[in-house]
Amino acid sequence: MPGNSFGEIFKITSFGESHGPAIGGIVEGCPAGLSLDTDFIQLMLDRRRPGQSSITTQRKEEDTVELLSGIFEGKTIGTPIGFLIRNKDVKSNDYDHLKETYRPSHADFTWQEKYGIRDYRGGGRSSARETASRVVAGAVAMQLLKHYNVGIAAWVSAVGEIEMPELHTPVTQEAVYNNDVRCPHPATAAKMISLIKEIRSEGDTLGGVVSCSITGVPVGLGEPVFDKLNASLGKAMLSINAVKGFEIGSGFNAASMRGSAHNDPFTNEKGKIKTISNYSGGIQGGISNGAEIYFRVAFKPVATIMTEQETVNSTGEAVTLKGKGRHDPCVVPRAVPIVEAMAAITIADFLLLNRLSKLNS
Amino acid sequence: MPGNSFGEIFKITSFGESHGPAIGGIVEGCPAGLSLDTDFIQLMLDRRRPGQSSITTQRKEEDTVELLSGIFEGKTIGTPIGFLIRNKDVKSNDYDHLKETYRPSHADFTWQEKYGIRDYRGGGRSSARETASRVVAGAVAMQLLKHYNVGIAAWVSAVGEIEMPELHTPVTQEAVYNNDVRCPHPATAAKMISLIKEIRSEGDTLGGVVSCSITGVPVGLGEPVFDKLNASLGKAMLSINAVKGFEIGSGFNAASMRGSAHNDPFTNEKGKIKTISNYSGGIQGGISNGAEIYFRVAFKPVATIMTEQETVNSTGEAVTLKGKGRHDPCVVPRAVPIVEAMAAITIADFLLLNRLSKLNS
Amino acid sequence: MPGNSFGEIFKITSFGESHGPAIGGIVEGCPAGLSLDTDFIQLMLDRRRPGQSSITTQRKEEDTVELLSGIFEGKTIGTPIGFLIRNKDVKSNDYDHLKETYRPSHADFTWQEKYGIRDYRGGGRSSARETASRVVAGAVAMQLLKHYNVGIAAWVSAVGEIEMPELHTPVTQEAVYNNDVRCPHPATAAKMISLIKEIRSEGDTLGGVVSCSITGVPVGLGEPVFDKLNASLGKAMLSINAVKGFEIGSGFNAASMRGSAHNDPFTNEKGKIKTISNYSGGIQGGISNGAEIYFRVAFKPVATIMTEQETVNSTGEAVTLKGKGRHDPCVVPRAVPIVEAMAAITIADFLLLNRLSKLNS
Amino acid sequence: MPGNSFGEIFKITSFGESHGPAIGGIVEGCPAGLSLDTDFIQLMLDRRRPGQSSITTQRKEEDTVELLSGIFEGKTIGTPIGFLIRNKDVKSNDYDHLKETYRPSHADFTWQEKYGIRDYRGGGRSSARETASRVVAGAVAMQLLKHYNVGIAAWVSAVGEIEMPELHTPVTQEAVYNNDVRCPHPATAAKMISLIKEIRSEGDTLGGVVSCSITGVPVGLGEPVFDKLNASLGKAMLSINAVKGFEIGSGFNAASMRGSAHNDPFTNEKGKIKTISNYSGGIQGGISNGAEIYFRVAFKPVATIMTEQETVNSTGEAVTLKGKGRHDPCVVPRAVPIVEAMAAITIADFLLLNRLSKLNS
Repeated sequence: MPGNSFGEIFKITSFGESHGPAIGGIVEGCPAGLSLDTDFIQLMLDRRRPGQSSITTQRKEEDTVELLSGIFEGKTIGTPIGFLIRNKDVKSNDYDHLKETYRPSHADFTWQEKYGIRDYRGGGRSSARETASRVVAGAVAMQLLKHYNVGIAAWVSAVGEIEMPELHTPVTQEAVYNNDVRCPHPATAAKMISLIKEIRSEGDTLGGVVSCSITGVPVGLGEPVFDKLNASLGKAMLSINAVKGFEIGSGFNAASMRGSAHNDPFTNEKGKIKTISNYSGGIQGGISNGAEIYFRVAFKPVATIMTEQETVNSTGEAVTLKGKGRHDPCVVPRAVPIVEAMAAITIADFLLLNRLSKLNS
Repeated sequence: MPGNSFGEIFKITSFGESHGPAIGGIVEGCPAGLSLDTDFIQLMLDRRRPGQSSITTQRKEEDTVELLSGIFEGKTIGTPIGFLIRNKDVKSNDYDHLKETYRPSHADFTWQEKYGIRDYRGGGRSSARETASRVVAGAVAMQLLKHYNVGIAAWVSAVGEIEMPELHTPVTQEAVYNNDVRCPHPATAAKMISLIKEIRSEGDTLGGVVSCSITGVPVGLGEPVFDKLNASLGKAMLSINAVKGFEIGSGFNAASMRGSAHNDPFTNEKGKIKTISNYSGGIQGGISNGAEIYFRVAFKPVATIMTEQETVNSTGEAVTLKGKGRHDPCVVPRAVPIVEAMAAITIADFLLLNRLSKLNS
Repeated sequence: MPGNSFGEIFKITSFGESHGPAIGGIVEGCPAGLSLDTDFIQLMLDRRRPGQSSITTQRKEEDTVELLSGIFEGKTIGTPIGFLIRNKDVKSNDYDHLKETYRPSHADFTWQEKYGIRDYRGGGRSSARETASRVVAGAVAMQLLKHYNVGIAAWVSAVGEIEMPELHTPVTQEAVYNNDVRCPHPATAAKMISLIKEIRSEGDTLGGVVSCSITGVPVGLGEPVFDKLNASLGKAMLSINAVKGFEIGSGFNAASMRGSAHNDPFTNEKGKIKTISNYSGGIQGGISNGAEIYFRVAFKPVATIMTEQETVNSTGEAVTLKGKGRHDPCVVPRAVPIVEAMAAITIADFLLLNRLSKLNS
Repeated sequence: MPGNSFGEIFKITSFGESHGPAIGGIVEGCPAGLSLDTDFIQLMLDRRRPGQSSITTQRKEEDTVELLSGIFEGKTIGTPIGFLIRNKDVKSNDYDHLKETYRPSHADFTWQEKYGIRDYRGGGRSSARETASRVVAGAVAMQLLKHYNVGIAAWVSAVGEIEMPELHTPVTQEAVYNNDVRCPHPATAAKMISLIKEIRSEGDTLGGVVSCSITGVPVGLGEPVFDKLNASLGKAMLSINAVKGFEIGSGFNAASMRGSAHNDPFTNEKGKIKTISNYSGGIQGGISNGAEIYFRVAFKPVATIMTEQETVNSTGEAVTLKGKGRHDPCVVPRAVPIVEAMAAITIADFLLLNRLSKLNS
């Protein structure tokens, strides 16, 4: 049954509701013999954790991951890595008023209709809390990728109407994670933080954009024709809560360009075939060409706002709703490690799949 | 092995190279008992066919589909539908000069590196010719959807910098397919056609945008959390050749909006729960909510241009390339039925998956 | 990556090593709205548990299952059911001597060669301890099946050369589980127990046969042509540790029969089409025909014996090995609930798949 | 949708009904760069072909395979291999009387109930004619395996009550295919042929056993825990029409053996770790250990007999049926290449999967 898994070879299957006993998952397909730094997994989780800064939700989860299998004496052994994160700071009473109410632009109505029953507490499984499991899997994938010298960095490039200017130097994780909004351009970061605080004080929320860059990807990743690398990256991102758009390389700008301007000429750089420009975003015909892969992900504003809204309850009666609980005013800062995680899982998967392309490999 | 299939239950697996004996595929998962109009399948293929108008490639393929199984006395019988389209108007000599040359922004280099061998004639399997198989599967899916009153229409909403104004009436297939550029706004269509002809005369190419609307979708389609309906639609579109971006509902605009403006309030319309606005694009929490699903797909300009370009050959030597063969100056008019087909396959698949959600269904 | 999952719609993915922190898994695809009796899940686990009787291993695991998700107010909600069983009575020191030794007819050598590394303690993931996760999933499946009036019973029909005579009444779970060897024929059960005790006293082990009967299966389960119901049942059984053979219906006897004797004539029994005999074992053309499904599963003798054996270590040196640790002298009594579990998972999966066969269902 | 595919990486998806325009399929996952001998593919098909000898059905199909893609200049190119076999000698009128009649121990009743509609001509897709597609895929797999020095041979080891004595030399394909019954023991072969002719003259049919041996398999194939190599081989065989049983290595005999007799001691043979005996059948813990893999497959007698049988029609009325059409009196001789094909597909698949086990491979 599809729905709870991502990846073909390197694969995460997740479980868990926001206010149940625990969330967790199983990471399959990591080859045997990889040294795993479990502190790094926890570090990635800490970067996604709620309550970590003044501009995120105040729900405080320790989000301590417990690794249950698949690792022996510090190395992967080829068996699935089961893991668990207990749900601790659960204030389910905050959600009692939502038992019968359909919050606008949330998943309450659609889940109730689909399943005929739902765990309404904290959004149940539709909560972004589920993405913690993705981050665990992503942190394993990143260590596999590191072994192959692949690097991934994501960052906030827009919050509301504030857009970061284009940088002409590579983005480093240090520059990303040294401020609360995860924007590597300090002046823009300050404006973003200020805007988020202002919006929060109004009880409102904001959308934004997360950009991502993947470097060191070998030539050849991607499985034509339906599992093009860009298609799978797109699905990975669009499966994250609140995402409304995805563009790779030239993206939507490509629509208004001419072929003569958009084409990336090949050149021979010290014996290595490369492209001079990179409108392709590192992928041609669905397969990586060795250049930087870069893409942008659009997030809608968080649906839970603190002002009154009109809606209906499960019997169809009109009701007035006012947000309670603890929520993010803008989701993109905490989305950065999630985007990185999903990118890492996708690339790791295709890296392994590519072992199968040739007769002698 | 992933790569050649799309869908979990309603599923297309395709095969075939552009200049081999034939392309074709297998459609699985169509329930037994559906009356199939084979003329409609051919009609959809005709809409994708090269050489059909003055603004498309002059390669003339009849593209006659032969249905080989899965249908008995005009109805599906629950077994896979095998089908075949012979490649006829093959001028492989046109491609001899490409045997060793890597065309910019084509798949030549990446395929050669991935597999160590490739059928270079006409792009082999990386050619958009493969999408004819998708159209066949899509035409089956559309007939299944029609049985459930689901309607799909796509159209060209932008060519280069020419954008169609927003229509305030639903788009009909009649209005789409009555002009060569498949834009349902006649005045804009005329400008687009004129621009494409101008660009072609310069030996250049153009990108564009295809929009798509799906109506009549029941509430409940989508498989959380990784197989959200929007994520699978996005993958479906991003797997089409030349696609660089996908946005659903409010799309990238959502990034600069506030929650209070973006939320779609629920209301009770004659006993039916609906949303007043539809920034969600008909999907909430990854599951359809019964409203119109709409999205936009960005296509890059065709990579084959008729002016000289610098590139390298397979040994890394610099060479000058000038496009030969017969190519589209702008891909979006012929992409319309492909977008419709992939949308239909995706919705049909989730329609069937949704039979599995509840205990008693 | 295949290996850790079974089922397409109703699906178990398991994780865990014998002497790691825990084993567990994720059950996907159980439709929403099923009332789940968690005591029944524990009861099934208790039936598989080591240390439960005088003829099983003395390793004492409480094997308490903790259900972590997918259930709300006593019912399934359509989300994955994550679960966990802690490993408690771990005496890893018992296995130190096996670090470098390849036990005959165990998985030590093959796992080491496949992965280059292994958790040698208690057999790691190759231990039959993993089957506890199958029993949990099976206990969920059985409750789904019960809702559809499908019943499953397995029993020990042979231990060594002692075979149970054919019963002419249906086997009940009560008759199976009321003795330690799980043979519903008391006189035979007594002989089997006595033989097992005798063999154990010699430090040796014994093989046996588990038989299984499934009743109330609706007509139509099975997915031709590669996923015939008998083929999937066979794989389910052959994936259980120590299984060497599987036969359904007439089984190997069919090879020496004539068509005129083997065919099952159809008849009309009060308006219902049935077969008079049932050599088919309830499955024709890979699809259930409504009759009882029955099959037999052959288990080899347990590989760990308490007498000295010649073998080699990982550097290829000859060594002498004598079994330590706590092991079963005969695996079939504890295999009974595992066979039932795997049968239940398989039938549940095909029951759901069959919802997809027809246009209007 | 499961049903029409076998394999994870090396994968066959088949289509086609017995009396439709064609049968065929798609072979995916064969690595690029393999030289393919298309004559060998046809040779394998010829060995399965009806009408080839005096003891098989007289239906005469040329069964000429047309390869449509995936091969360029004699080599695989990593893309799917589409293929087609036209149905030529179709005498559908022979089957008109079966339109409403449920033949005993055929798939008529179960297919009709499952799908509500069926192509009754020649059994439609439930016909063993479908296995021709398996043979094509198997012939590709065999060439991949040959590259890795894996050899496969199957043979008829029993027909009715006539069993071949155990040979003490390896079975060669030459010895198998040099007589009509495919038994490598000439004296037994003669008896089998004589028995089949006798049974045919009585209008009756016979079951039999096919044995199979796989040599040169590297250590490490098999994916624990659910996709053990023996489990997948078992499913492969049980998915073949008319198969009722499967046993590997010691098989059902294991049930009555003691561990001290059944264990296969390891030894060091010139620096290579091997087992002295091979009751395991070359697989331990679900993973190949380098020794010969051998198994036996039981086939029931053909259901179509030429004597009168009582049965019912689709409205439940009692009718008398007498076999018409052209059928095999005993299926095992023609099953030999099918068993080889399914074994080859399975081993090829696991050979490729095993590339994914270790970090550095």
